[in-house]
Amino acid sequence: VITEGGIARLTGALRGLPELHRGEVWLAGAGPGDPAHLTLHALAGLMQADTIVYDALVDQRVIELAAPGAQRIFAGKRGGRPSAKQADINGELVRLARQGARVLRLKGGDPCVFGRGADEMMTLARHGIPFRLVPGITAGLAALSMALIPATARGVNRGIFLATGHGAAGDDDWSDWAAVAQLGQPIVLYMALARIEAIVRGLLAGGLSATTPAAVIAAATLPTQRLAITALADLPDAITGNDIAPPAIVVIGDIVRTRAELTTLMPLLAQEALA
Amino acid sequence: VITEGGIARLTGALRGLPELHRGEVWLAGAGPGDPAHLTLHALAGLMQADTIVYDALVDQRVIELAAPGAQRIFAGKRGGRPSAKQADINGELVRLARQGARVLRLKGGDPCVFGRGADEMMTLARHGIPFRLVPGITAGLAALSMALIPATARGVNRGIFLATGHGAAGDDDWSDWAAVAQLGQPIVLYMALARIEAIVRGLLAGGLSATTPAAVIAAATLPTQRLAITALADLPDAITGNDIAPPAIVVIGDIVRTRAELTTLMPLLAQEALA
Repeated sequence: VITEGGIARLTGALRGLPELHRGEVWLAGAGPGDPAHLTLHALAGLMQADTIVYDALVDQRVIELAAPGAQRIFAGKRGGRPSAKQADINGELVRLARQGARVLRLKGGDPCVFGRGADEMMTLARHGIPFRLVPGITAGLAALSMALIPATARGVNRGIFLATGHGAAGDDDWSDWAAVAQLGQPIVLYMALARIEAIVRGLLAGGLSATTPAAVIAAATLPTQRLAITALADLPDAITGNDIAPPAIVVIGDIVRTRAELTTLMPLLAQEALA
Repeated sequence: VITEGGIARLTGALRGLPELHRGEVWLAGAGPGDPAHLTLHALAGLMQADTIVYDALVDQRVIELAAPGAQRIFAGKRGGRPSAKQADINGELVRLARQGARVLRLKGGDPCVFGRGADEMMTLARHGIPFRLVPGITAGLAALSMALIPATARGVNRGIFLATGHGAAGDDDWSDWAAVAQLGQPIVLYMALARIEAIVRGLLAGGLSATTPAAVIAAATLPTQRLAITALADLPDAITGNDIAPPAIVVIGDIVRTRAELTTLMPLLAQEALA
């Protein structure tokens, strides 16, 4: 159903996008995983780059959209695997740009939503290297869509709080979960599995009800996508009991109920969307 | 620099995307404005739809990527213009699907981030009409990227609160800005211009400092894009003094300082990014 005319219009749109110049770096988001969620701008970066520096969360099918001759540099940072240090990645981007490469720095989700894009921008600016920010669909919001949980719903919430649950050494040990609970708005947590017990404890102590609906969505948009729906107090057990592993997004709040309302009305949705 | 090989790989990826069937509705996000930020999935919807129901915030260049014969139905809801009621839009989607159309419901940003996607999903499910959610880049996060303001930065913030400032008749009059202030994390406001004075007053009363950095970004990603940077207490004056009109995103928090740090290091960035 994709016609020649459609491809011609698309090609015209791609040709109108900015050029990735020699010695320049694009900090681009690849979205949540499935190449379906890649933007035209990120795609134009993939097509033009002669060097791609990519993260562990970037799907192989996305990388395959690049020119066959492009150099691919893996710069993943995932628990358990040998990982590149952020300072090394920053240095590599500077080195490649100075060699005159057209560099695409490709990250899962959005480069500036818990993605260290700020660090990399600042490094490039400090070295006088021209760069461009190319937004991507952030994993937290994509995961909600895949689970048929709207980020906002009229009469339910007026805002949504996106937060990292990661508390690695060197980071501030911010953990004001009581203030988050007091906000009374849904919470979307990135990288929260390792500290989920402490986070749930903090939210309960801050006043959230133990029965607040909660969900965890692993590998959103990928064939390995999984979903567990539970109550706030049971979230740690639901994660271990269902063998849910990173990457995963946790969502806590009344918006989670929407999925049950939808699938009750239309049982087929439950199968189509998620296991 | 977009090669034939690149187009062939892209065409292959598009052909692998789901089919938009007769009698089905895709609720898709068109992203912040510029077609550069459209995803492949939304694009596949545009290419396959025979009826497109679109909002005021969807750029004309996006609509032009659709098949020339596709029916285009404007369903904008913007202050000051004749506007479609949400119930009418819901009814129209049901009617079109029942007629056997391939319907693309296209919204600015993401359909489920302050976009009434929840309402429309629920209506479709209630009438047994198959649908699919296709996420888009939400305007709030895209606006930050355009302004070179990272949504998160290590050592600065651990989360970000997205909220609507809109308090139209019929909505709850939620306005717990004191709790938002107590959170101590950056705030991104959608549709907040009309009520900005009350919001700023609430945040100041809640404990935010009058000198907290703030920015307003209008028409993000479009040629008419504009930016004003100020302090929280001066936000209402900065909006009126610079004639800033909707659509606009307001951001409040220390992350706003990053733009000044970047443009001091690299003055060219300021010109390239925004006026």
